[in-house]
Amino acid sequence: MSNSEIPSYRTKKPSRYSRHPRPGYNNRAMVWMEKDGELYVSGGRAALLQHIAELGSIAAAARQMGLAYRNAWLWVESMNRLAPSPLVRKNTGGVNGGRTELTDEGHKALKAYNELNRRVQRMLREE
Amino acid sequence: MSNSEIPSYRTKKPSRYSRHPRPGYNNRAMVWMEKDGELYVSGGRAALLQHIAELGSIAAAARQMGLAYRNAWLWVESMNRLAPSPLVRKNTGGVNGGRTELTDEGHKALKAYNELNRRVQRMLREE
Repeated sequence: MSNSEIPSYRTKKPSRYSRHPRPGYNNRAMVWMEKDGELYVSGGRAALLQHIAELGSIAAAARQMGLAYRNAWLWVESMNRLAPSPLVRKNTGGVNGGRTELTDEGHKALKAYNELNRRVQRMLREE
Repeated sequence: MSNSEIPSYRTKKPSRYSRHPRPGYNNRAMVWMEKDGELYVSGGRAALLQHIAELGSIAAAARQMGLAYRNAWLWVESMNRLAPSPLVRKNTGGVNGGRTELTDEGHKALKAYNELNRRVQRMLREE
């Protein structure tokens, strides 16, 4: 997934109806995963995980997305709390010391969200 | 479709994550139709159409949904403007005089939305 495919939060007014407007009638869907009724992984959170995996830092990922660092941090905290085991981990020593990265569980959750979202979006396109 | 199956807007804080919370991990999707990037039919708008068809009045439909009359009216105005031909019509004379009802186009749009939404929700359940 290249950066250009990851949705940006820099849009002035993030209306979900006009971020990617297309002419004519279109069926749209927004997909997310919940744990016990709480938001677990959404499109924005999946994009954040993807950026963290690529950039090795929550701050850099937030900057790239035009997202406040505080919000990025809260999203990560929430995902880590709701997941069977944390999705994002900060390495404290060794070769990758100081680098924040996705755990195996993190890669798994990102892949699961992307596959689910792709299946739903493909279904809408095939209408 | 009985009234109890139509989502209510009476919920105090209409968070899309907790309106129908289920235990454990769940995949969720919200489906809507756009015209030229503008919202055309959503779950709430489809419920409004359904209530209008059953109750014969925008005011009664709004009351039933706990929705402000002004909003219900704006939703109808928007759908009528974006549809190929109006979805909702007020009869001005004859046997059904004064009754507001769905046009053929209105019944068609409601059915199209419900079928689309059902297909997406069924797909999520089958994961």
